[in-house]
Amino acid sequence: MDYVYAPGRNHLFVPGPVNIPEPVIRAMNRNNEDYRSPAIPALTKTLLEDVKKIFKTTTGVPFLIPTTGTGAWESALTNTLSPGDRIVSFLIGQFSLLWIDQQQRLNFDVDVVESEWGQGANLDVLESKLASDTSHTIKAICIVHNETATGVTNNLAKVRQLLDDYQHPALFLVDGVSSICALDFRMDEWGIDVALTGSQKALSLPTGMGIVCASPKALEASKTAKSVRVFFDWKDYLKFYQMGTYWPYTPSIQLLYGLRAALDLIFEEGLENVIIRHKRLGKATRLAVEAWGLKNCTQKEEWVSDTVTAVVVPPDIDSAEIVRIAWKRYNMNLGLGLNKVAGKVFRIGHLGNLNELQLLGCLAGVEMILKDVGYPVKLGSGVGAASAYLQNNIPLIPSRI
Amino acid sequence: MDYVYAPGRNHLFVPGPVNIPEPVIRAMNRNNEDYRSPAIPALTKTLLEDVKKIFKTTTGVPFLIPTTGTGAWESALTNTLSPGDRIVSFLIGQFSLLWIDQQQRLNFDVDVVESEWGQGANLDVLESKLASDTSHTIKAICIVHNETATGVTNNLAKVRQLLDDYQHPALFLVDGVSSICALDFRMDEWGIDVALTGSQKALSLPTGMGIVCASPKALEASKTAKSVRVFFDWKDYLKFYQMGTYWPYTPSIQLLYGLRAALDLIFEEGLENVIIRHKRLGKATRLAVEAWGLKNCTQKEEWVSDTVTAVVVPPDIDSAEIVRIAWKRYNMNLGLGLNKVAGKVFRIGHLGNLNELQLLGCLAGVEMILKDVGYPVKLGSGVGAASAYLQNNIPLIPSRI
Amino acid sequence: MDYVYAPGRNHLFVPGPVNIPEPVIRAMNRNNEDYRSPAIPALTKTLLEDVKKIFKTTTGVPFLIPTTGTGAWESALTNTLSPGDRIVSFLIGQFSLLWIDQQQRLNFDVDVVESEWGQGANLDVLESKLASDTSHTIKAICIVHNETATGVTNNLAKVRQLLDDYQHPALFLVDGVSSICALDFRMDEWGIDVALTGSQKALSLPTGMGIVCASPKALEASKTAKSVRVFFDWKDYLKFYQMGTYWPYTPSIQLLYGLRAALDLIFEEGLENVIIRHKRLGKATRLAVEAWGLKNCTQKEEWVSDTVTAVVVPPDIDSAEIVRIAWKRYNMNLGLGLNKVAGKVFRIGHLGNLNELQLLGCLAGVEMILKDVGYPVKLGSGVGAASAYLQNNIPLIPSRI
Amino acid sequence: MDYVYAPGRNHLFVPGPVNIPEPVIRAMNRNNEDYRSPAIPALTKTLLEDVKKIFKTTTGVPFLIPTTGTGAWESALTNTLSPGDRIVSFLIGQFSLLWIDQQQRLNFDVDVVESEWGQGANLDVLESKLASDTSHTIKAICIVHNETATGVTNNLAKVRQLLDDYQHPALFLVDGVSSICALDFRMDEWGIDVALTGSQKALSLPTGMGIVCASPKALEASKTAKSVRVFFDWKDYLKFYQMGTYWPYTPSIQLLYGLRAALDLIFEEGLENVIIRHKRLGKATRLAVEAWGLKNCTQKEEWVSDTVTAVVVPPDIDSAEIVRIAWKRYNMNLGLGLNKVAGKVFRIGHLGNLNELQLLGCLAGVEMILKDVGYPVKLGSGVGAASAYLQNNIPLIPSRI
Repeated sequence: MDYVYAPGRNHLFVPGPVNIPEPVIRAMNRNNEDYRSPAIPALTKTLLEDVKKIFKTTTGVPFLIPTTGTGAWESALTNTLSPGDRIVSFLIGQFSLLWIDQQQRLNFDVDVVESEWGQGANLDVLESKLASDTSHTIKAICIVHNETATGVTNNLAKVRQLLDDYQHPALFLVDGVSSICALDFRMDEWGIDVALTGSQKALSLPTGMGIVCASPKALEASKTAKSVRVFFDWKDYLKFYQMGTYWPYTPSIQLLYGLRAALDLIFEEGLENVIIRHKRLGKATRLAVEAWGLKNCTQKEEWVSDTVTAVVVPPDIDSAEIVRIAWKRYNMNLGLGLNKVAGKVFRIGHLGNLNELQLLGCLAGVEMILKDVGYPVKLGSGVGAASAYLQNNIPLIPSRI
Repeated sequence: MDYVYAPGRNHLFVPGPVNIPEPVIRAMNRNNEDYRSPAIPALTKTLLEDVKKIFKTTTGVPFLIPTTGTGAWESALTNTLSPGDRIVSFLIGQFSLLWIDQQQRLNFDVDVVESEWGQGANLDVLESKLASDTSHTIKAICIVHNETATGVTNNLAKVRQLLDDYQHPALFLVDGVSSICALDFRMDEWGIDVALTGSQKALSLPTGMGIVCASPKALEASKTAKSVRVFFDWKDYLKFYQMGTYWPYTPSIQLLYGLRAALDLIFEEGLENVIIRHKRLGKATRLAVEAWGLKNCTQKEEWVSDTVTAVVVPPDIDSAEIVRIAWKRYNMNLGLGLNKVAGKVFRIGHLGNLNELQLLGCLAGVEMILKDVGYPVKLGSGVGAASAYLQNNIPLIPSRI
Repeated sequence: MDYVYAPGRNHLFVPGPVNIPEPVIRAMNRNNEDYRSPAIPALTKTLLEDVKKIFKTTTGVPFLIPTTGTGAWESALTNTLSPGDRIVSFLIGQFSLLWIDQQQRLNFDVDVVESEWGQGANLDVLESKLASDTSHTIKAICIVHNETATGVTNNLAKVRQLLDDYQHPALFLVDGVSSICALDFRMDEWGIDVALTGSQKALSLPTGMGIVCASPKALEASKTAKSVRVFFDWKDYLKFYQMGTYWPYTPSIQLLYGLRAALDLIFEEGLENVIIRHKRLGKATRLAVEAWGLKNCTQKEEWVSDTVTAVVVPPDIDSAEIVRIAWKRYNMNLGLGLNKVAGKVFRIGHLGNLNELQLLGCLAGVEMILKDVGYPVKLGSGVGAASAYLQNNIPLIPSRI
Repeated sequence: MDYVYAPGRNHLFVPGPVNIPEPVIRAMNRNNEDYRSPAIPALTKTLLEDVKKIFKTTTGVPFLIPTTGTGAWESALTNTLSPGDRIVSFLIGQFSLLWIDQQQRLNFDVDVVESEWGQGANLDVLESKLASDTSHTIKAICIVHNETATGVTNNLAKVRQLLDDYQHPALFLVDGVSSICALDFRMDEWGIDVALTGSQKALSLPTGMGIVCASPKALEASKTAKSVRVFFDWKDYLKFYQMGTYWPYTPSIQLLYGLRAALDLIFEEGLENVIIRHKRLGKATRLAVEAWGLKNCTQKEEWVSDTVTAVVVPPDIDSAEIVRIAWKRYNMNLGLGLNKVAGKVFRIGHLGNLNELQLLGCLAGVEMILKDVGYPVKLGSGVGAASAYLQNNIPLIPSRI
């Protein structure tokens, strides 16, 4: 498409889809294959085994579904719940809003716990609901680990703690779309029943694979859940798992090889190192925002996100203009403010296969754009603040020591 | 995956996924992009316009859904029908069987018209049902255009004729998974209400995009259809179409560019030429089967399929062994016999981006395998019969005249 | 380039450039890298070590030169010889002719031993020359292992035998462009002093790397050879070999990674298996030619080539027309007859990463073209003859057993 | 090669090989083709026509040689000169040194005009030589337009002026390896007789194509030049140009399609815009160096290079350590100081397909490394200085207005 060519690399800083590493692009650069030949089940077997590691589960069963995050949500809900089931769901931004919309359209009885955008899930309200729900009418707690619209990370360990405190049997369903493979995520330890992500987020693949992981308790629930489902039905997958052919319908051969390459890269770097890298880039971004004299949309330190930062612009600036200029003048993509925060925030995604100098290039660009729109930023100030943090004790790349 | 490497090109003759043309592989060899930047809507707009041409519709509205054919089925059904709706569905092979299974699980009242595998849909039964259904309890007719398991092509024009003859308002839903872009298909002329295909079939792309096209009547039906749906809901697409951003959730950037390239190739060759090419390859394959003294699973000439040929093996031969040898010895993939015809037929897919010499190489391979399993074939006989037909008046490649 | 698009795979049956395996295309699908970073020398080291295996040498020193076969010839000659040096060179076809032309333009005293095109090098003449050259005026014997224009393989072991019989110290320079990695080639055992090939031949890479391997004797000769050379000078390479940085000027990063992948595939299949595969495909091709009632340009069985077959057409047929039709109607590329055999032969290249069914598809195509040009071939006859040989005891693909 | 993997994009800031744009990588992602089929000559014809535009010549004849810059040098010299010919050559850094070394080894009588590294060619000396050479013993002037080792751009217009002033008929041979397609270059206007570049420089392709362009006067000289040459002989090319098949030996199919894509991108951006972009990035880099309190190796403003900046480090710092840290810690490649300036300078390449934010990311990295090695830089200072210049009146990307 000629009308969008611009010289140099595109600077992709939306919180997904993110940059695909070259080895993954290479792995996917291939013709189709017959998914019923011996090669694809053999490959799939390694993927199902290894993908559990990124969820930190040993007992969960993963499903690699040809869909997006929205489909993964639907898979999580319809396989474990029946129409009319009461679920507690937290509305803290655009993506939790969309999930709740889905929950309602799927005919669950959604008990929405709303917070101001920029705040995390209100777990005090959850606690009171659990406390009063002695008859266990709440069938599931639905929560996004990281709200991509506001850059807010919720405290999943705390949710589990509350469920345990009240010995509540509700299923614990987690949207890990912008967290898994980037933030600290512990499916087994936190007793999560269904966790899910999408391929185009921290896994740094193209869009097209929804990855859902179900605990034994969730699998048990799926046997009696009455929500209508076919395409998203785990049962069909489980049947083919047993047969050793794995696929109830045609998978994307390219995404399977891509996932293999993506996992290999993550394991080579080390999952813990990947998480540390995200912490460092998140912190650096926030230091730059601070240096610019701007506010983070995230209202408290406990909620800051290491995968996306929503930056609040002064009232006289339209954040959408910042996103427009980024694309037009600097070949950079930033995230728009969505819904309630439209025009008020722009978002810097810093997840996936990304390194220090890429981020600093982005921050340098943001500074120039801020100046372009009339905000009196000191050029170099954010980059300086971020790089001061990064330079001081940067971890070595293990493979290059 | 080292353990499957074999020298030379893989000979992919399953009826999907099929070979991807090199220009399409190239078009997809790319990093992710922000689907909210101006480039992707501009690209999508051309795709939605041009994809209608392969359906031969001007009034239909297409949806490019990140899913497989199974998901496309679900989209077609849930958007147009309500639980309990009576539908007439034809069971003639494994794929119609699976669609019927889905229809039943989605709680429709499925009136199954079964034929022996190898026969086409029994339209006499349809006629009698339509004739007696004066109160219009039948809400939809569901039919696969081409049953991929048996190589049977149904007569869609005849279905429309019957509906018209009886002035029956039932929706006409067609699975064109292994027909669209390969067989003669006329959505508008035949009054089809929902037609669908998958990217990995005649479009010759990777798996991952279900393409569904809805007539105005189908769109109207979707406003009142009560089937529960979210991910597959056309409403969300239509909302974003109106906004000009097109995507309710993240599409695969790679598949969009791939579809652009695939359509460009089809239009360059000419859709009618593509269909003629499939006719020629289908005919050549059947002549080879005849020369080998074997039977086509398709029982009558009127049903023969130009995209897949199911070859019946003699009773003392296990067709699965033929498929195994193809892979092990000749780096070729043939289709297994499925379900009722397991062990009894093997399938040669001849759809998608394929040419004469590729097919003849396949046929030469099948001959050797037949000999490998003890069938007394004369080597060269099938190839000779097929090439006699092909050589006599082969159409020139337009671009090379 | 739209005007050449044709559906399906291109059938590439020229004797180079040949089909590149998908894993090699993938390995080369990459951005540039700094060749002075630690990664490239580390990679190069493995290449220099492993490339010796395809020459079957342990004492030779390989050079990976950014050039073509023509440049590799020049490198071989100018590094080992001085202007005026007498060399014996065999003219048996177009490529030996071109090499001799180069030898003459480089001011050597070329003693040309000519044979009829279709015959091998006349080693009787060589013997008499060696016998009479008691004063060792002959400084080098230059011979193509496989003459690509006529499909003639020379007997290198015999050349060595003669040199040994007469205790002649002449350097033994071999063009292995269409033999190495496909035919039996033994640099050390046959006492070859310089052997060379090009990346686009049996190694199945893109064009652009001339691979030259020098024996210790050749390296010694290079110290005193007076031919003017800079770009092709081995001395510069040897200097950088010692420094461990390997490259006197910028290599193609892509070809280095491609060579790594190509060698990996060859070793996975097994070099001996690769050679057997070429034998089988060569034999099958010749059986087809015989079945068509046509003559092989190669006049005696002892010279037949397992990498290319030059087929003699009847006098009333123009072989160039066969090549033209192959491209225009069947998306196939055959080799033209060159120079003395222009119009009289067409060539089928069967070297590199190729398998049985690809070849049979080609043969089926040739049959149709023969018919197209009016030659009374029985369609299926050549394919039948070839596949009868191939089917009877086809070797299993090791990785698929 | 696992041991070099590092997360995120590699930051490639050596002055070649440079980043390849994605569309060019895509164009090259292909199988081999027969270069004798109609498609390749048709493609080549467009390349030969269009490549002249980047030299700004209408009368020159280009040669696309499968070689590197070193081979292109050799082609320029051997086709136009005879052994013993007197040539004036300017030694101002490592690459002019290497060219002079080649000139001497090719047996020319090289009249070396040396300058301190960091200075441009001494044209005063040239003038005096021309003034005194009334008998025209000087056959050629050889000069690098941009000395890549020191970041010095010579004044070619001035050289032409001097030749004209003294009506001297010497050939004017220019190494444009790190200038053509990036700096202002005017072959016809400046009366350049041979200009050359390499594919991996500003054209942003892989290594492997030496592009040489000869004026009519140079072509005339080639008819009588007595330097021995075969592989590099223009005569063979010209013969095939006349035949319309273009190639005396096998070209890299991939590089031909790559060059087509590279030229298309350059023309889409506009060659003048490309040059302006390099000016801007060069200026921004120099402003950063100044802000860090460091010296540019280039001693005078008139010589500053817009494609590479050689930064002089303080005496107590080893510049090689900076390059090492860049690779180890930041996944960045900077250029080493070579030969006389080894350890004293490091080089930032800012040529080819590159944009503002990529450069700013690099500069941010350099700042951190300077701090790593103990140099008291203020973090953000260089980035701030560079971005102040860039932000103030950044040109819009034409395709995105």
